[in-house]
Amino acid sequence: MPQYKLTYFDLRGWAEPARQLFHLSHTPYDDIRIPMADTEGKWEKMRDKTPFGQLPVLNVDGFDIPQSAAICRYLAKKFGYAGKTPEEEAWADAVVDQFKDFSVAFKTLLFATRAGKPEEEILKIRYEIFNPARDVYFILLNRILKKSKSGYLVGDGLTWADLVIADNLHSLEKLRAIDDDDEGHQNLKKYKEKIYGTPDLEDHIATRMDTEV
Amino acid sequence: MPQYKLTYFDLRGWAEPARQLFHLSHTPYDDIRIPMADTEGKWEKMRDKTPFGQLPVLNVDGFDIPQSAAICRYLAKKFGYAGKTPEEEAWADAVVDQFKDFSVAFKTLLFATRAGKPEEEILKIRYEIFNPARDVYFILLNRILKKSKSGYLVGDGLTWADLVIADNLHSLEKLRAIDDDDEGHQNLKKYKEKIYGTPDLEDHIATRMDTEV
Repeated sequence: MPQYKLTYFDLRGWAEPARQLFHLSHTPYDDIRIPMADTEGKWEKMRDKTPFGQLPVLNVDGFDIPQSAAICRYLAKKFGYAGKTPEEEAWADAVVDQFKDFSVAFKTLLFATRAGKPEEEILKIRYEIFNPARDVYFILLNRILKKSKSGYLVGDGLTWADLVIADNLHSLEKLRAIDDDDEGHQNLKKYKEKIYGTPDLEDHIATRMDTEV
Repeated sequence: MPQYKLTYFDLRGWAEPARQLFHLSHTPYDDIRIPMADTEGKWEKMRDKTPFGQLPVLNVDGFDIPQSAAICRYLAKKFGYAGKTPEEEAWADAVVDQFKDFSVAFKTLLFATRAGKPEEEILKIRYEIFNPARDVYFILLNRILKKSKSGYLVGDGLTWADLVIADNLHSLEKLRAIDDDDEGHQNLKKYKEKIYGTPDLEDHIATRMDTEV
């Protein structure tokens, strides 16, 4: 079996679906985490050695793979969570890219909040940028799930697209971006709970460090 | 052979690498183009029938695949341009996702220009948002190409990542975002010319409608 090393910050973020793929497939891996309070400057020392100056990076027997979706797709194919046909694989890819398009707005809100921008500016971003993008994205997710007989986003079983989308929904809940009185939002919350209730995932989710994102 | 229908606007844009994959593999397909001056409102009539309310969409024997990268990856796998190993496939994916990250800044500049924003605002976007993102992205591309023995971005042959990156470099040239007196920029221009000079592609490139993007 190859030696896997996954390096990321001490967050769920863009590495969490990859961690979940390791857990689902009972594959040992090194879960290397740079502390958010990086007092030793570990990240600065390491940055130039990463392929794109970014994390996560997956190292497979010495070979580095950057970019979160590329990492997840690679592992999903190895472990059987990429989709059962070329068409299912393409749909898993498409759903993840649709999420990535939405995540531009998500990051704009997140970074403004983290940067401690004035409340007024954050609210403006929330209502003018984030909410419209989220609403379009949620409608698409609900439409896919409504047509799905399995309750999964693609085909009749769990794919890496479910892991990516469910974990982001978890972040959206934490950021109070899922409304209690909106049926579409609540459907997505139930969907997230279904994915989080996957056997072989529950233990991991119960014991992981549950950061804000 | 499946029946392929690729629907997009009358632009190169996010559909062009898919069109090139059809040409490279000598695969017949319907190249359906919605005119940019859409006087008959074709797009509005069609929008709700597309999976994500967006184009391009690839239809394969009646089955719709949305999202440009998902479409290209699907075709690249079918036609032998996805990479020769799982690790090469992951690197092609990673390079395309790195381009997509950069393209957020590219779109910001493009849409501001198209919307006819005041010159001062466009210059601000160009110098504060677009140029810094482009510079980081160009350094990464040059670093990959410097290490490459083949002159391609991944492995020893052409992949869909080359098609995506080269066609965007062509757009950047048209938008005067490639400097004549910068060595790194000129290296990328030469790389683009190499990809554009691929046999089975030259004919297509010489006869296609060469829109701004």
